[in-house]
Amino acid sequence: MNDDSSARRLADTLRSVVRTAPAGSRLPSSRALAAEHGVGPVTVATALRLLAAEGLVETRPGEGTFARRASTTPGGDTAWQLTAMGPATVQATALGALLRPPRPGSVPLSSGYLAPEHQPHHLVSQALARAARRPASLGRVDPTGLPELRAWFATEAGARPDDVLVCAGTQAALATILSSLCRPGDAVVMESPTYLGALAAAQAAGLRVVPVHRGPDGAPDPQDLDRALQASGARVLYAQPHGANPTGTSWPARTHRELLAVARRHGCFVVEDDWAHDFVLAGSPRPLAADDPDGTVLHLRSLTKSTVPALRVAAVVGRGPVVARLAAGRTAADLYVSGVLQHAALDVVTGPGWRRHVRSARTLLIERRDLLAAAVTRHLGADALTHVPDQGLHLWVRLPDDADDLALAAAAATAGVDVTAGSPWWVSEPAGPHLRVSYSAADPAEAAQGVEVLAGLVRDRPRTP
Amino acid sequence: MNDDSSARRLADTLRSVVRTAPAGSRLPSSRALAAEHGVGPVTVATALRLLAAEGLVETRPGEGTFARRASTTPGGDTAWQLTAMGPATVQATALGALLRPPRPGSVPLSSGYLAPEHQPHHLVSQALARAARRPASLGRVDPTGLPELRAWFATEAGARPDDVLVCAGTQAALATILSSLCRPGDAVVMESPTYLGALAAAQAAGLRVVPVHRGPDGAPDPQDLDRALQASGARVLYAQPHGANPTGTSWPARTHRELLAVARRHGCFVVEDDWAHDFVLAGSPRPLAADDPDGTVLHLRSLTKSTVPALRVAAVVGRGPVVARLAAGRTAADLYVSGVLQHAALDVVTGPGWRRHVRSARTLLIERRDLLAAAVTRHLGADALTHVPDQGLHLWVRLPDDADDLALAAAAATAGVDVTAGSPWWVSEPAGPHLRVSYSAADPAEAAQGVEVLAGLVRDRPRTP
Repeated sequence: MNDDSSARRLADTLRSVVRTAPAGSRLPSSRALAAEHGVGPVTVATALRLLAAEGLVETRPGEGTFARRASTTPGGDTAWQLTAMGPATVQATALGALLRPPRPGSVPLSSGYLAPEHQPHHLVSQALARAARRPASLGRVDPTGLPELRAWFATEAGARPDDVLVCAGTQAALATILSSLCRPGDAVVMESPTYLGALAAAQAAGLRVVPVHRGPDGAPDPQDLDRALQASGARVLYAQPHGANPTGTSWPARTHRELLAVARRHGCFVVEDDWAHDFVLAGSPRPLAADDPDGTVLHLRSLTKSTVPALRVAAVVGRGPVVARLAAGRTAADLYVSGVLQHAALDVVTGPGWRRHVRSARTLLIERRDLLAAAVTRHLGADALTHVPDQGLHLWVRLPDDADDLALAAAAATAGVDVTAGSPWWVSEPAGPHLRVSYSAADPAEAAQGVEVLAGLVRDRPRTP
Repeated sequence: MNDDSSARRLADTLRSVVRTAPAGSRLPSSRALAAEHGVGPVTVATALRLLAAEGLVETRPGEGTFARRASTTPGGDTAWQLTAMGPATVQATALGALLRPPRPGSVPLSSGYLAPEHQPHHLVSQALARAARRPASLGRVDPTGLPELRAWFATEAGARPDDVLVCAGTQAALATILSSLCRPGDAVVMESPTYLGALAAAQAAGLRVVPVHRGPDGAPDPQDLDRALQASGARVLYAQPHGANPTGTSWPARTHRELLAVARRHGCFVVEDDWAHDFVLAGSPRPLAADDPDGTVLHLRSLTKSTVPALRVAAVVGRGPVVARLAAGRTAADLYVSGVLQHAALDVVTGPGWRRHVRSARTLLIERRDLLAAAVTRHLGADALTHVPDQGLHLWVRLPDDADDLALAAAAATAGVDVTAGSPWWVSEPAGPHLRVSYSAADPAEAAQGVEVLAGLVRDRPRTP
């Protein structure tokens, strides 16, 4: 790593040389370059590789390195596409903002991951290195998933390995579920507010999203749900019953049975997106899937959130013929999930370091949640925080009625604080302006300062006279 | 690896012990197990890890290993799903068969990959190990792809990095293209026969597949294409102009301009699935995208086929506003592609071993193609092979008019020869029964024996009197 900056400097120097050289001309030898620029051979090799990646040079073993003209086809008129493509269906602006890596130097109150220093880099790095050495992990895998990994997911969910379908992350699983079980134009019922990624997946599948409001106890009212399913004919309810993103609330255990029964009566699958499974901060939530003999629940479990962003591995756990339906849909969507990622994921979660990691992440998250909650109450008032989450990574912060959450989040970004506006997460009209404020990634002292900045922006907000 | 069999034996022994032990009881220490079973500590650790993956034991650091009762929810009645799910849209049986790893001991004449011993395991393994050590590759990446990898794909296709969208394989790219540019019920035009995965992607997107016949020169007739686009109103033509799978034919260079012009006149995108880009066996095919200033072509380039199945990395290269449309669709489908796979892919294709690998694969494929083509002609007659491919991995073998390709492929599997039936690849009725016979994976001597078996089955086929 240390060598990177000198290699980049050398690449910058060589880039201008190469750009003006005739295509096909040979560069000086690596030894000559090292001597000329006073650097080591590793630096030269790294610099040449950077230029090769940009398509500026080409290395031919035994012959040397050659300038290569980056030939770009001249651009014509592509405006015809704006008619040919038809209307856009996916509104990915808010989701795209969520996915952008944090800006260096900003306070990351918008992250959906653990802080990089709390991610189990060592476990994952070792597991990947081991997987990379095993020919079996480079080759073909069963399209439904690595048998041992399916067995692990099954045990976690109290199911059988055949009930498990491995997917390249929860988003891929959800996209497959919606396009496999719904026809375009169909309704899908979602809690409001709900996860932005679920809204995008529904848009991509051409579905109408029908809201069901979360009641004050964190769960939809069973009669509300009954009416929504009756009126819409939806075959799928998408829900986050445990530490919902963005609200941080959970369905009380006493509501599970009745809500499931309502769905079952309407022949409606319940997608239980258990995204925060490894971020339980209090209590021990019971999955809906544990009380579902008839296959109403499709349980989603991801390993990406609790490991590292690069480990795109998740599972759908279902029961009954629906599993085969989803397997066919997953095959059409992406054929199979990389064997090396599956082997590495299995290695991580069955290794002795896994439970230690989950425990230590929990301790850190509890501390960060409490400090951030205190900062919010101190700077924004007790009314700003109606609920301190028992699970997940986010606080759902209520702003004054006349505040504009989108303008506020934009102003905060300018002031160096990354935070997520609440409006795009609602299916119906927002019940007041909110910000989603994440406690996982920012250092607590920095996070508190960030909240102070937010409070200042709220205080100084433009007001209509 | 060598240790695996003794670990598996030990796991078998311990499994029956654990299954009858009370849940929560502690196993003997690793040292005691090693002594009792006369094995080393690595073997004990591996065996315990196998049992942990099956959910039978749980290791708590500093405390020991404990029996864990695999609790499975009792099964109820899931038959309601068969009504609730509605009609199945994706016919994934033939595609699923294609994806199944080869059966040990069978002659693999159905593989779409290089033989494992010809895959660049060493390059990929080293690249993955390097990527695993870099924190940047474990973390978040730009959802459109790693900038250096986009630059590499762009250079390869004569485009700009902004024109490139990295996807988790060609199938994922295709699924995104079809669901982003077509509305359910729309038509998509495909050559007949065409790639099974493309048919499945179209079914999943709810599209009508409209065939355009491949002429004797390997390309659709421009007037046929004109009529198909006119009648169907399709906004997308999916094609494999270079070494098509399954036919092995290519569009002659002189047809490119006219076919593109027809598509352009109808405001129709042309998906150029360049799956066999790295398997050019003769000539130097020019991509359609190289003569497309107006953004008609969406060029698909995969690295999976030419590296290893685990490296699920591909790109769509386009031009114009369509790239943003596809980026939104890709985000809704799977958020982003694992950084570790992207870093490893970049490392492989910009390293000095890459071109050597592609060259040596080419030499091997030419040899295998020629030997298999000779065996087909010898055992099945000169009429069985009308075309020897200049690109790709497959021969398209014509069977006698009254042969049943599906029954023949099933009989061949029973006889230990894996080969792919032609019928499912057609969009319209098949122009005669065919088998797709792959030359990449089987040892040439074995492959010739496999063809002899096929010829025997053809000779002895049931005939209607």
